[in-house]
Amino acid sequence: MSAAASLPRRGDGVAAIDTPALVVDLDAMERNLATMADFARTHGVRLRPHAKMHKCAAIAALQMAAGAVGVCVQKTSEAEALAAAGVDDLYISNEVIAPAKLARVAALAQRVRLAIAVDSQEGVERLATAMREAGAVIDVFVEVDVGQGRCGVPAAAAGMLAQRVVSHAPPDGGLCFSGLQAYHGAAQHLRGAAEREAASRHAASLASAARASVTAAGIACRLVTGAGTGTFAFDAASGIWGELQAGSYLFMDRDYADNAPGPNTPRFEHALFVKSQVMSRGTSHAVVDAGHKSHAVDSGPPRVWRRELEVGSVSDEHAVLRIRSGGVATDLPQLGETVWLVPGHCDPTVNLHGHYVAVRGGLERGVVEAVWPIEARGCIT
Amino acid sequence: MSAAASLPRRGDGVAAIDTPALVVDLDAMERNLATMADFARTHGVRLRPHAKMHKCAAIAALQMAAGAVGVCVQKTSEAEALAAAGVDDLYISNEVIAPAKLARVAALAQRVRLAIAVDSQEGVERLATAMREAGAVIDVFVEVDVGQGRCGVPAAAAGMLAQRVVSHAPPDGGLCFSGLQAYHGAAQHLRGAAEREAASRHAASLASAARASVTAAGIACRLVTGAGTGTFAFDAASGIWGELQAGSYLFMDRDYADNAPGPNTPRFEHALFVKSQVMSRGTSHAVVDAGHKSHAVDSGPPRVWRRELEVGSVSDEHAVLRIRSGGVATDLPQLGETVWLVPGHCDPTVNLHGHYVAVRGGLERGVVEAVWPIEARGCIT
Repeated sequence: MSAAASLPRRGDGVAAIDTPALVVDLDAMERNLATMADFARTHGVRLRPHAKMHKCAAIAALQMAAGAVGVCVQKTSEAEALAAAGVDDLYISNEVIAPAKLARVAALAQRVRLAIAVDSQEGVERLATAMREAGAVIDVFVEVDVGQGRCGVPAAAAGMLAQRVVSHAPPDGGLCFSGLQAYHGAAQHLRGAAEREAASRHAASLASAARASVTAAGIACRLVTGAGTGTFAFDAASGIWGELQAGSYLFMDRDYADNAPGPNTPRFEHALFVKSQVMSRGTSHAVVDAGHKSHAVDSGPPRVWRRELEVGSVSDEHAVLRIRSGGVATDLPQLGETVWLVPGHCDPTVNLHGHYVAVRGGLERGVVEAVWPIEARGCIT
Repeated sequence: MSAAASLPRRGDGVAAIDTPALVVDLDAMERNLATMADFARTHGVRLRPHAKMHKCAAIAALQMAAGAVGVCVQKTSEAEALAAAGVDDLYISNEVIAPAKLARVAALAQRVRLAIAVDSQEGVERLATAMREAGAVIDVFVEVDVGQGRCGVPAAAAGMLAQRVVSHAPPDGGLCFSGLQAYHGAAQHLRGAAEREAASRHAASLASAARASVTAAGIACRLVTGAGTGTFAFDAASGIWGELQAGSYLFMDRDYADNAPGPNTPRFEHALFVKSQVMSRGTSHAVVDAGHKSHAVDSGPPRVWRRELEVGSVSDEHAVLRIRSGGVATDLPQLGETVWLVPGHCDPTVNLHGHYVAVRGGLERGVVEAVWPIEARGCIT
């Protein structure tokens, strides 16, 4: 029997969902979707959610129907997988360097609206060559390091790199300079709202300096794109970012929920869960059948949903649960009982699964409304 | 283009392997394979390597050709996937509680030689029901908690549970009591050899007590199965374990290599790598295209292979590399350069990939000899 053969069908109750399973609370997800779409509309910014988080064409379609201009991805193969499933406006918000991969980028740019980030002269030249050889055109964002210390050029170097992009502009070349990529990943997970606001301000000042560098080079900088679920409200308020790339707002993992909420920041609900089952039971602990091959622990353990239980340890195929301080022994679930886990980090958790089971009507008495394939799962190249 | 379409072909050089990719150094793997097979033969114990680590039928076949009696798995769907790919002797060394899943176990037991672990009376009864309804027979091991504090009954309770298993013996029932499952996962990763030896001794004393409990119940206990890559030499020396389940010896991840080697324990080489490429380069750091969606970080970051570099941070799709203390600036790799990573933990790393690229002749100048599908990847149910 294949993994697909054990999937539930539309109309099944939640009890029929085999464990472990990746379950979406559709009602909560739709509220999150509407909240962020409203925020973007109200604040006059574009929304291009990061599909590296959900990796699913059905969800990208819901986001675009709610007003998103398209989605971001991080990998060429993610873009290919989502394009093959019907997503037609994609931004690879990351650098691609290998010539063979750039040839795939160029081929894809002939089928969908495609953008990509660059942060080196060598990268620009290689991209330009690939596009010219394919006769393709692509939107290009110059990535600026706004505090993350990972990819991106220093702010002052943005103008020079933009010039290199513009030197390959149509009709002779295939690179359309579109603006700046400015994302501060580490800022998203600072626990205090004031800390995140300060990091956002710092990022805004660097993005602003980068924009000035581009303008000083005589090039129009139409858009700064970036921002995540931890800082988007601060970023939008800065007036620098014209496009938000937040992704996790849709599912809200344990790690993001551990952030102290910011002022003027809309709240999001947990909408992604791993359904697990107690498969072994001691006198003071219960073991569920979902370890870190079912939910990623890079940002810490999952949280047990609405029970007085804490996660004691997580191994490949098991998680050990104990009564939380102040709980009573009868809170410990019985053998065979269902336990819902809120993943520590949604992006790599989703990447472990082949499908979402989308449930309407809540986790207790809900009904399966859809089973969505995660088309870009495992698309790491 | 699908992920499979970007896979290399037999005869390609390593340069043709797109990144990130999961690469096996075949020469190193075969030496590890032979070393463990020799150890088992020399010490008169059976070897049933854990396929939860590699999840691959081709590798299981190599292990069985070298003398392994079969393989272990942790999940019903893993057993199904490997059986479908030709593996015919499987042990689910873990508890299964859901009746729908037990029906699948029973169906599988009619197609291959199958064993399973139990650690509760309820589990025995449910398993017996499923086997009876299918008219199937399965080998059953009673799991004993030998120090891990996860699954398993206390040693003194083993006899009573074995009696319950025996009460469903053929010809009337479908449960063949086969012995004890005794695995101490946490002991594998204790850094000091003396600590691991002490944990193994403690586990052996509990396994011995459990065996006495079974014997006192008038039941023959033919086999104690368990042990891992960190303790197998101590476990084999105890005379308690008749079957070793070590899995990671084949690939040797960074975490196992960080253990201080034990006396009389054969050495294993790193044989599993993630090929990555520098896709962004700063003045004092380089960023490769392989984050924790390409190599699991639950046991810590990967190690950079044979370069004076350390891993500064790992995010979903990136890893930031810096010069190790004592290194010189010219050690920092250039944009586009290949960097080989030794994964922190092989089991969940393998689970992130669809294929192994098996290379003969070393990582520098080797040639692709095979591309093996990871059939049980993502088989979590």
